[in-house]
Amino acid sequence: MSAAMPPTKANASKTQRLYLLLRHGIVSGEIAIGEKLPSEAELGNLHGVSRVTVRRVLGQLEDEGLISRQPGAGTFVKDRGVSRPIVAELANALANLNEMGRVTSVKLLSFAYVRPSASVAQSLQLGPDMLTQRSVRVRMANNEPFSYLITHVPQPISGTYSEQDLATHSFLSLLERSGVEIDRAEQTVTVTLATPEMAEALKIDIGGPLLSITRVTFDKAGNGVQHLQGFYRPDRYRFEMHLVRSKEAEEFIWKPSSGEVNRAAKRNAYT
Amino acid sequence: MSAAMPPTKANASKTQRLYLLLRHGIVSGEIAIGEKLPSEAELGNLHGVSRVTVRRVLGQLEDEGLISRQPGAGTFVKDRGVSRPIVAELANALANLNEMGRVTSVKLLSFAYVRPSASVAQSLQLGPDMLTQRSVRVRMANNEPFSYLITHVPQPISGTYSEQDLATHSFLSLLERSGVEIDRAEQTVTVTLATPEMAEALKIDIGGPLLSITRVTFDKAGNGVQHLQGFYRPDRYRFEMHLVRSKEAEEFIWKPSSGEVNRAAKRNAYT
Repeated sequence: MSAAMPPTKANASKTQRLYLLLRHGIVSGEIAIGEKLPSEAELGNLHGVSRVTVRRVLGQLEDEGLISRQPGAGTFVKDRGVSRPIVAELANALANLNEMGRVTSVKLLSFAYVRPSASVAQSLQLGPDMLTQRSVRVRMANNEPFSYLITHVPQPISGTYSEQDLATHSFLSLLERSGVEIDRAEQTVTVTLATPEMAEALKIDIGGPLLSITRVTFDKAGNGVQHLQGFYRPDRYRFEMHLVRSKEAEEFIWKPSSGEVNRAAKRNAYT
Repeated sequence: MSAAMPPTKANASKTQRLYLLLRHGIVSGEIAIGEKLPSEAELGNLHGVSRVTVRRVLGQLEDEGLISRQPGAGTFVKDRGVSRPIVAELANALANLNEMGRVTSVKLLSFAYVRPSASVAQSLQLGPDMLTQRSVRVRMANNEPFSYLITHVPQPISGTYSEQDLATHSFLSLLERSGVEIDRAEQTVTVTLATPEMAEALKIDIGGPLLSITRVTFDKAGNGVQHLQGFYRPDRYRFEMHLVRSKEAEEFIWKPSSGEVNRAAKRNAYT
């Protein structure tokens, strides 16, 4: 164990871990519908738990309708009739949604002027006393929430729109209306755990894993105009990239496939 | 709660949840070094726990050297002297490592011929009885593990290299030696929880969140030549994209910035 990741000493039970692991595997689709789970003995050996514990966990998952235990045959992942997760081009967070025939909507949860955290202020290159307009939105597909979006916009851009504007317009249209000329963005992808607010809005457990994307957008003068943190339910949303080989000066590299990006891109790609 | 994500009924304690949330926030850098945590009362209200529970969790984090509690002033995230996580271009999983002066190494954990799972077989478009060569590798930077890589290669390509070859050569050089002409790849990004094997290899807790990338590579004839699943510790690794604005036919889209991708690309980008 390193200094960066000390061992968990709090009392997480092995039962709970096995339950969460299997449940995540099934709900995320990593363990496919119809797939057979390892035997009780195998699960017990692999996770260092007794067969009594394995049976308790499987019983729980069966109660939740995730698996089917067939005596003599084994345990199988049930077809729960869930829709496939949204798959979007990474460069265009909302691309493909229209093509897939999904109906998306946005709910504005909060709207305020705040002193941003040090990391937001630094990303947007703000002075020490500058406030940002902070909004929290939840995006839904067919009325099911899949992303939780925290956005910071500095003054004076944020002075050009109201809470009512944001509840009824896309961020892109509001930024364009303000006269901002968007030039480029930097996007980072990582993983986080759901806070109580995120968990409530996304209808998941507190501490559940989320895909996390931070995007900082700059105008043509190089000023930061928007800081967006997007948190995505992994069972409902995943990102995809199409890459093509490129060989330049004896170097082997991957390049994003522009054709695919263009095909997938849609006007409201800018969340 | 939807059918896809039933409520957790197993007995996850609120203490454990608060501990894991705060610990992840600190270790991942989401809560910055020097940042002040909310007060005990605020944490209790937010997470629905008593101040006794909050104090127990903070005491645990203090014991682990993650925070410093300063009576009268508050609780602050300690500077643990940890190195910044590796940040790599998404299109090139190992780009930037050399630029950052990191020494990376690979350890081969297993090498076998297996009947692949249905999802691997489908991705590689394999017939029902085809075997794949499955390897598990761990990649380290400065002797600290940061990624766990499971790779499947179909016959007859996999017949051109041995376990010893894979332990000592890059996958790219072995595929090229076999005569494969790599053309394109499809990459999906999501989140998963560490299995016992991943946790042991990556030195994290079982069930800890990992960034998960699946890449399927195809040759010029459109045949699948490699299926790679990479699992990354979020405190040690994150992906980055540089995007530029593109306006075509009145559509607003983001495009990956080729210049940045080229700059970052390195020969051994192909894991």
